[in-house]
Amino acid sequence: MNFYDKLRAAWRNNNSLVCVGLDPDPAKLPACVRSLDKPVFAFNKAIIDATKDLVCAYKPQAACYAAQDADDQLAETIRYIHEVAPTVPVILDAKRADIGNTTRMYAAEAFERYQADAVTVNPYMGMDAIKPFLDCADKGVVVLCRTSNGGAKEIQELVLQNGELLYQYLAERISTVWNYNHNVLLVTGATCPAELGEIRKRVGDSVALLVPGIGAQGGDLEGVLRNGLTADKTGLVINSSRGIIFASNGEDFAEAARREALKLRDAINAFRG
Amino acid sequence: MNFYDKLRAAWRNNNSLVCVGLDPDPAKLPACVRSLDKPVFAFNKAIIDATKDLVCAYKPQAACYAAQDADDQLAETIRYIHEVAPTVPVILDAKRADIGNTTRMYAAEAFERYQADAVTVNPYMGMDAIKPFLDCADKGVVVLCRTSNGGAKEIQELVLQNGELLYQYLAERISTVWNYNHNVLLVTGATCPAELGEIRKRVGDSVALLVPGIGAQGGDLEGVLRNGLTADKTGLVINSSRGIIFASNGEDFAEAARREALKLRDAINAFRG
Repeated sequence: MNFYDKLRAAWRNNNSLVCVGLDPDPAKLPACVRSLDKPVFAFNKAIIDATKDLVCAYKPQAACYAAQDADDQLAETIRYIHEVAPTVPVILDAKRADIGNTTRMYAAEAFERYQADAVTVNPYMGMDAIKPFLDCADKGVVVLCRTSNGGAKEIQELVLQNGELLYQYLAERISTVWNYNHNVLLVTGATCPAELGEIRKRVGDSVALLVPGIGAQGGDLEGVLRNGLTADKTGLVINSSRGIIFASNGEDFAEAARREALKLRDAINAFRG
Repeated sequence: MNFYDKLRAAWRNNNSLVCVGLDPDPAKLPACVRSLDKPVFAFNKAIIDATKDLVCAYKPQAACYAAQDADDQLAETIRYIHEVAPTVPVILDAKRADIGNTTRMYAAEAFERYQADAVTVNPYMGMDAIKPFLDCADKGVVVLCRTSNGGAKEIQELVLQNGELLYQYLAERISTVWNYNHNVLLVTGATCPAELGEIRKRVGDSVALLVPGIGAQGGDLEGVLRNGLTADKTGLVINSSRGIIFASNGEDFAEAARREALKLRDAINAFRG
């Protein structure tokens, strides 16, 4: 099953547009898992067990694992998701890009070593730098477009000669020229719902948007839904990381994560009607 | 010693602008190392032993290690360079960028876990996404500007409202606003020497350029030197990977690497005069 089919099935089966970000920042792990042999995997496993019927995707943040030499626990986490939630796709948030020869190795990292269903990538080097990802027709390729950070405008909203903003130009180009395998998604922050609406207008309903920035980053959920939902009330993968996984740092962290995931799913579904 | 001091000392001590890219593509490793316990480290060690008096830097490509689950051998390689060539800086080619909170973890990956002296980063998300790297005043931050791949123009040469090309605008902005710790370098491909000259004009002599694309990618060495050298005949870190490390795939691979590194150093120095 290709990535989009898997994502659509997860949207439907779990009636959810919620993506849980598996970002096990070592400084924030609950005390009850820190003493375990594999604290990162133990933490993720509990979160996955508690939320797997509530989400349309999981998004592990590669940096969290790389920083603490926990690559094996990342691999184990993804294997675990495929085992207990085989219909929920995994998006490896790695934001990779390099020259084609090297990108082939990053594709091997994401899709072979880690067995992710999709990966986030950075467009700055151009399409040929991303092609080894795009060529994996069964995998999702989630390209940064208008990111959620406060300084995103500095480059992404530069005005081009024709008056368009850079991210607008890229949204259109990436969703057409780069999308020859119909496996592209775009990253658009929840912190900029108006820009998200601009992107939706340009790319139509066939391209899903991965939306970080809900929760700790203060994104605008209602604005995202108003401007980003497709005609069939899907089209969005709304990520929350810290707001869900670190809702409690006590022994009830997994229950608290479930509560927050449910709350987010229900708030989204109330809007979808 | 901060990164620029270390780089300047290496330029001077080894009388070299050559950077050797440590990109141990598993498909290309010589048969004589493949059967070893740690083939990647054994290969790198031999290359380092054979070239350490000829180079101004080493640049391991993170993707090569990530793809083959050889993170430990990357760490071991960098430790080995610090041990046997303590005056030669190590640039981890990782092309990272993320929101600031996450980039802090990528900085931990590059500078703590791997003990690199510098790291390559991608500018698309803006300065705040790179700030955790820039804040490490002792470390070098090598920002992509005009890359060596054939498709680099697609985005990097978009024309802005004021007539400037995107990479030109970024060269100026990154070398000033982002350079508050005087630790920025820019990536400029050897495949586009005219654009490299544009960048040199804009950033002046105080910003070094990391130049990939010599050798297998067919870059123009003379053009790079003509347009990129600073008044004191330095300012460039000219990388060759495959052209040096895979010069032979026999048992003489390290000698062959030394021969190619020497040839490149001498060709550069002949031009420098």
